[in-house]
Amino acid sequence: MPESPIRKLAPFANEAKEKGKKVYHLNIGQPDIETPKEALDAVRKFDRKILEYSPSEGYHSYLFGLVEYYKKVGINIDIDNLLVSTGGSEAILFTMNSITDLGDEIIIPEPFYANYNGFSIASGVNVVPVISRLEDNFALPPVEEFEKLITPRTRAIMICNPGNPTGYLYTQEELNKLRELVLKHDLFLIADEVYREFVYDGAKHFSILNLEGLEENAIVIDSVSKRYSMCGARIGCVVSRNKEFMATVLKYAQARLSPPTLAQVASEAALKTGPEYFAGVKQEYLERRNILVEGLNQIEGVICPEPKGAFYAMAQFPVHSTDRFAQWLLSDFDVANETVMIAPAEGFYATPGMGYNQARLAYVLEKEALQKSVEILKAALQTYPGTLL
Amino acid sequence: MPESPIRKLAPFANEAKEKGKKVYHLNIGQPDIETPKEALDAVRKFDRKILEYSPSEGYHSYLFGLVEYYKKVGINIDIDNLLVSTGGSEAILFTMNSITDLGDEIIIPEPFYANYNGFSIASGVNVVPVISRLEDNFALPPVEEFEKLITPRTRAIMICNPGNPTGYLYTQEELNKLRELVLKHDLFLIADEVYREFVYDGAKHFSILNLEGLEENAIVIDSVSKRYSMCGARIGCVVSRNKEFMATVLKYAQARLSPPTLAQVASEAALKTGPEYFAGVKQEYLERRNILVEGLNQIEGVICPEPKGAFYAMAQFPVHSTDRFAQWLLSDFDVANETVMIAPAEGFYATPGMGYNQARLAYVLEKEALQKSVEILKAALQTYPGTLL
Repeated sequence: MPESPIRKLAPFANEAKEKGKKVYHLNIGQPDIETPKEALDAVRKFDRKILEYSPSEGYHSYLFGLVEYYKKVGINIDIDNLLVSTGGSEAILFTMNSITDLGDEIIIPEPFYANYNGFSIASGVNVVPVISRLEDNFALPPVEEFEKLITPRTRAIMICNPGNPTGYLYTQEELNKLRELVLKHDLFLIADEVYREFVYDGAKHFSILNLEGLEENAIVIDSVSKRYSMCGARIGCVVSRNKEFMATVLKYAQARLSPPTLAQVASEAALKTGPEYFAGVKQEYLERRNILVEGLNQIEGVICPEPKGAFYAMAQFPVHSTDRFAQWLLSDFDVANETVMIAPAEGFYATPGMGYNQARLAYVLEKEALQKSVEILKAALQTYPGTLL
Repeated sequence: MPESPIRKLAPFANEAKEKGKKVYHLNIGQPDIETPKEALDAVRKFDRKILEYSPSEGYHSYLFGLVEYYKKVGINIDIDNLLVSTGGSEAILFTMNSITDLGDEIIIPEPFYANYNGFSIASGVNVVPVISRLEDNFALPPVEEFEKLITPRTRAIMICNPGNPTGYLYTQEELNKLRELVLKHDLFLIADEVYREFVYDGAKHFSILNLEGLEENAIVIDSVSKRYSMCGARIGCVVSRNKEFMATVLKYAQARLSPPTLAQVASEAALKTGPEYFAGVKQEYLERRNILVEGLNQIEGVICPEPKGAFYAMAQFPVHSTDRFAQWLLSDFDVANETVMIAPAEGFYATPGMGYNQARLAYVLEKEALQKSVEILKAALQTYPGTLL
């Protein structure tokens, strides 16, 4: 497996810290938002004497709770359409394993979440990228671009909505185009919807589970990680109305026995989280987004489309390589002994040469830290020798 | 993926319970032993406000704790030789993914843990079985039997020690034979040692990590599930001194982000479990084993080798198919409205036709329940029509 550009930076970040520099981590999606108290309290009150396996598909009380959760967000499914996974990660792995044979292909608009590559390697699947462009705000590429790439080995089209790393929120119209496409070619449509709650500016998230006539084709990847700021729980789920697919997923789930018990207890309790929590969190992310995106766009040469969802922004920098720029920020630059770590975008592209001057920035830090980060980036670009290269 | 014979029985068990029958579950390895209080208390005292990702390789405090644990059981490794996995299951999956390409082969003495098949399918690996026999107490098959099966695609030999489903404990002499074999053919030796603590009659467990000259070849799969009766934690680990192998495992671990946080907190606290806990648990399992194995051997036609470790026994029954017998026990038999569920052995063999008259029985129930189970099996065999077929 190849090493991701973000991982390659880690030693430079460690070195910077060892030298006493403060590093603002805009490179990772670990929110600083508190986990709902209900979730952690449920674990603190755990009163069983044996930490037993749960059923392979997850605790039924949790599955019933999830059915209610989906109903509240406008998605009608029943308990048989759900399987609890160990994080969204395992949901992706089970999905890829269940719908592909070795050498089959999945088309994914790039830039995409770098770990999709890892799961595809583990499943023996080839990821076929279709380029979405920063100039177009990372909107869905024209359907013709997808069609050009469809072969007899194509099994699915996969999207992340709202997107990591782009923050792009697909419109219902775009999703309808994908609907036509997968029906025409008899493909699965996989949507990673883990950021469903985080949409801004009055936009509405539309789930592929609500696309008409797509019952046999739609597969949703979900997770509590970002929704309730509980990334360490490692609880996700696979959602699909395709019975044959779910039966295959269950077999993979049975082989690994069960998802974590304590984290399911926390996740079930998290379902009680009220709308005021999400309203507060959304408002916070919105303000952070505005500080980051407006700030970046005011730096000369930086272009950052305004993301409508999730908590990432993809920006273009006036440098030849954000990989080298990110390294330089850690190794050779500081403002009053503070610097910034960004995620070079190369790792989010499968097409060689794409994204070399782009980076992903996560707005999971407090506003003041984001404000400072923007100032540091601005100062950095004024002195970065790479701009002259 | 094929359905396991044990899973196929589940609907019959449910039906029996719906009819009000009490079912003694000798078919599964979920211990009824209490989880050490230290482990659950640590979770109850969890005082962080965000349930964050842990490092992909696991919390370093836990890794250091594991180094100490291994030292106490006579195994000297350091922190770089360890990676925390989501259960032993993920440790097996990472191992198979890391050492094989599609179509590569791993030789495993059968009967073996049925889920090895699931992981091998997920990894695109072919399991090549070598038969160990009930008549020989499931001792290691002669090295010549392994050698016959080695091809250019063979990457590893895998054992479970002490064994699930056999309870067999390999001698140091047997392990030395495997050592010679893997060195001669440049293979990995993988040992699933999750039952390390559960060995009886004064026997001693010998780890492959202590086989001389096997530093580059030995890979141990481990887990807290059985050790501390915390199957639902989903915490295991991969242990190897082979740096290249561990670096590859880390990449798979990074793709799935992190093992569960809460369960790591519990597992770290479980390391404080004192020897008196294990002494008590071992004594309990020993007494249970004696009740089950002696009881089974007193039934006419039943042969059950005495297992020296783990908490399983494999027995041969005077029937044509333990699959049908197990189903009949659930559907058509009871003693005072009680019956027994056993795990037909077919699912533990890869060679067709093997194990058809064998079953695995787990002694994870209280002594009284085991005593009753033996009586029910005895009565059942006196009336089972299948004996006449």
